[in-house]
Amino acid sequence: MSDSDTETRPVSEDEGEGLEPHHDRDNRLTPDFVDAVLDHVEDGDAEGARELVRPLHPADVADLFELVPGDRREALAGALAELLDGDVLAEMNDWVRDEVLRALEPAQVAALATELDTDDAVAIIEDMDEDEQRAVLRALDPDDRAAIEEALSYPEESAGRLMQRDLVAVPEHWRVGDVLDYLRRTDGLTNDFWEIFVVDERHHPVGTCKLSWLLRTPAKIPLGDVMQREQTLIPVDMDQEEVALRFQKYALISAAVTDDSGRLVGMITVDDVVHIIQEEAGEDVLALSGAGDGDINEPILFTVRTRLLWLVVNLGTAIIAASVVGLFQGEIAKFALLAVLMPIVSGMGGNAGTQTLAVIVRALATNQLTSSNTWRMIAREFRIAAANGGSLGLLIGLGTFLLYHNPMLALTIGMAMLINNLIAGLAGVLIPIGLDSARVDPAVSSAVFVTMCTDCMGFFSFLGLASLLLV
Amino acid sequence: MSDSDTETRPVSEDEGEGLEPHHDRDNRLTPDFVDAVLDHVEDGDAEGARELVRPLHPADVADLFELVPGDRREALAGALAELLDGDVLAEMNDWVRDEVLRALEPAQVAALATELDTDDAVAIIEDMDEDEQRAVLRALDPDDRAAIEEALSYPEESAGRLMQRDLVAVPEHWRVGDVLDYLRRTDGLTNDFWEIFVVDERHHPVGTCKLSWLLRTPAKIPLGDVMQREQTLIPVDMDQEEVALRFQKYALISAAVTDDSGRLVGMITVDDVVHIIQEEAGEDVLALSGAGDGDINEPILFTVRTRLLWLVVNLGTAIIAASVVGLFQGEIAKFALLAVLMPIVSGMGGNAGTQTLAVIVRALATNQLTSSNTWRMIAREFRIAAANGGSLGLLIGLGTFLLYHNPMLALTIGMAMLINNLIAGLAGVLIPIGLDSARVDPAVSSAVFVTMCTDCMGFFSFLGLASLLLV
Repeated sequence: MSDSDTETRPVSEDEGEGLEPHHDRDNRLTPDFVDAVLDHVEDGDAEGARELVRPLHPADVADLFELVPGDRREALAGALAELLDGDVLAEMNDWVRDEVLRALEPAQVAALATELDTDDAVAIIEDMDEDEQRAVLRALDPDDRAAIEEALSYPEESAGRLMQRDLVAVPEHWRVGDVLDYLRRTDGLTNDFWEIFVVDERHHPVGTCKLSWLLRTPAKIPLGDVMQREQTLIPVDMDQEEVALRFQKYALISAAVTDDSGRLVGMITVDDVVHIIQEEAGEDVLALSGAGDGDINEPILFTVRTRLLWLVVNLGTAIIAASVVGLFQGEIAKFALLAVLMPIVSGMGGNAGTQTLAVIVRALATNQLTSSNTWRMIAREFRIAAANGGSLGLLIGLGTFLLYHNPMLALTIGMAMLINNLIAGLAGVLIPIGLDSARVDPAVSSAVFVTMCTDCMGFFSFLGLASLLLV
Repeated sequence: MSDSDTETRPVSEDEGEGLEPHHDRDNRLTPDFVDAVLDHVEDGDAEGARELVRPLHPADVADLFELVPGDRREALAGALAELLDGDVLAEMNDWVRDEVLRALEPAQVAALATELDTDDAVAIIEDMDEDEQRAVLRALDPDDRAAIEEALSYPEESAGRLMQRDLVAVPEHWRVGDVLDYLRRTDGLTNDFWEIFVVDERHHPVGTCKLSWLLRTPAKIPLGDVMQREQTLIPVDMDQEEVALRFQKYALISAAVTDDSGRLVGMITVDDVVHIIQEEAGEDVLALSGAGDGDINEPILFTVRTRLLWLVVNLGTAIIAASVVGLFQGEIAKFALLAVLMPIVSGMGGNAGTQTLAVIVRALATNQLTSSNTWRMIAREFRIAAANGGSLGLLIGLGTFLLYHNPMLALTIGMAMLINNLIAGLAGVLIPIGLDSARVDPAVSSAVFVTMCTDCMGFFSFLGLASLLLV
């Protein structure tokens, strides 16, 4: 791996150009193109399929496999085998890659893994069964195997799994010219890096230097004068979500990874972090709705199980809310209009609660909401809830009065609307903050509790007030 | 701007180290630290405040301003004025920056803007009132003014606003050594870049070259042999969301921006795109819940207006759903238990619909769902809905039978649950796909329609079946 040339350009070949006809205006492969490739495969014309696919970027080849139906992927993998390099696999959805890899021998997988940086090879191998993993590792050469085995020894989703071990580290006492000579003359160095790391005699990082600074500085200047001493160090066991937040906050391109004793053991580059930033930011909407990872490529039984579990939990809270209605069966039997209006109060509370919840969950996820501004945020949401609850209460109260000419009914629904909006605002801010400070992911667990509050209180406030004022 | 040294390190100063005591374990400034700074400001000890803040990274200084209450920001800006450089402003939330800038003179803002790359200067200036904008532009030197005015001529949220004009472009016929000489000997070049762009005689991009490749290749090799010809070109009017998707899909560090005639006019770097990736991915949860931008720093009246608009639209759909219940008032008056059980059916449909909706909205946003796999996805969601609806129907039917010993009531609620889950699954997939193909943002508009479907059909299927089978 360390001396592979996957991304290097020693001599350029006939690359790219003319990708565009295969893409729609959103840069997705067109259905016509996907069908054309599949037709070639079906007709046994593997070379025809390869001819179409060869000009594509590895990311687009990976997309192609994701876009074809699951039962066609093995045949496609067979036809395109010689185009299936490590870069394509690294870009592929985990579930789809599993299907494709199952069609290959361990030796073929090992050959693919050898082409890749440690981090990409680990991403491919970590999802395999233990047996397959062992078979692939046996087929690797000893250096690559040691590197991958060490990476696999770090926790899943940690910096240790994300980092690559190929980096350039030089001593602080060098001059800029020494670094340039070293880079040009040393065999076996990685060819793809954006910054070099400066280390002391214990191999602890003391600074970084962008390549553009090296190129713009006279050779005789000491490295210590041009490097940046302030840097963000990533502990090897840091969670990948934390890593992504650091890259984003400090606009990093690459960062040094250090072990427990502070030694430089690897580097993480922004291209490996970008998809984590996107996933972590996008997963809140999936978590809040109980859709798990929401991966459209996962096996359907897996999806059913994930979603059903969440729905059963919600069924429990729906039954609790229904039992609140049950307390007022007598009132409803006397005055069935109450049953017509009560879902408006509970539903609007649910909507308001979801708004607050979404804002607070995002603010927590992006580190904008901290203990410094928690009280300010609670007060802010309470004021918003009062303003919106008051407006909605007036609106629905007025409407009810005009429709039914019953002032007490209008007062009942208006007040219930205000009360339930206040409950929604408070539940929407207090529940996620409470869960977060208990180190429970607020995106996963908050929605159930907030909806239970707004359902129960919506029914209770409306039917309770009705039993006092009306029936 | 073009010859500024904001990020360059000619000679290093006493930087960083020891940031950690001010940060909690999530790398957020501690409340104690924030309070200590504010105490110094309140006591009129501006130098004491500066001493605390000086070691912080610009991103953390920006965070500090966001974490203090709105009415303390002006005083804080006054005390920290000399630390308030362009980098700090570029990292600051738009609303907070507006407050801080309002405390400064146009000449001061112009001085700050001059330090920055075009894209960061534009980000600061584009949010100002037209009068303020003009005043700041007048205070800039002519070159900077021309660059910023040109950037402002591109649409908001387009590549033209994101790009910087300082880049390194060289002709294809050079050798590697020519490039190195040019970089070392030319004054006025930018110091911060990750790749160089290779252009033809019309200044059209023909390739890119990572700096690490230049540093690892012998000087006599022609540039055309080491550069990569395949590259992602960004049209200057491309929407920033599209730009972010390209950076992510192709793992770009920087990309060339071209005008209508294909000339190279600027470059976008990944650090300017990372926060867009995060925002765009995170905004789905806010849009689906009707919370607008969900920015906790926006003025409270603005927030109230955004959220109330959405709630009023939802009130309309809630009233429509209630009118469905109204059709069955007679049945409810006779059998009040129906009113107790009906919210379970509608609510569970809402939950299932939201799950599907979240998955589909994410799949659309990340370009995973295209016309190639639309039908497959609809069939997939229908099967999931049938499995979950069947399971939940059995569960609630059985529970109802055990509790009330009424087989027809059990059958009614079980069947209604199945029907409403199927409706939820279909609405959750068809509505966002339909909106997306009509070029309407599915995240913003889908939830209202899906909830209306599940509410109305939940009530109608349960109460309708009850009127047939029970009452």
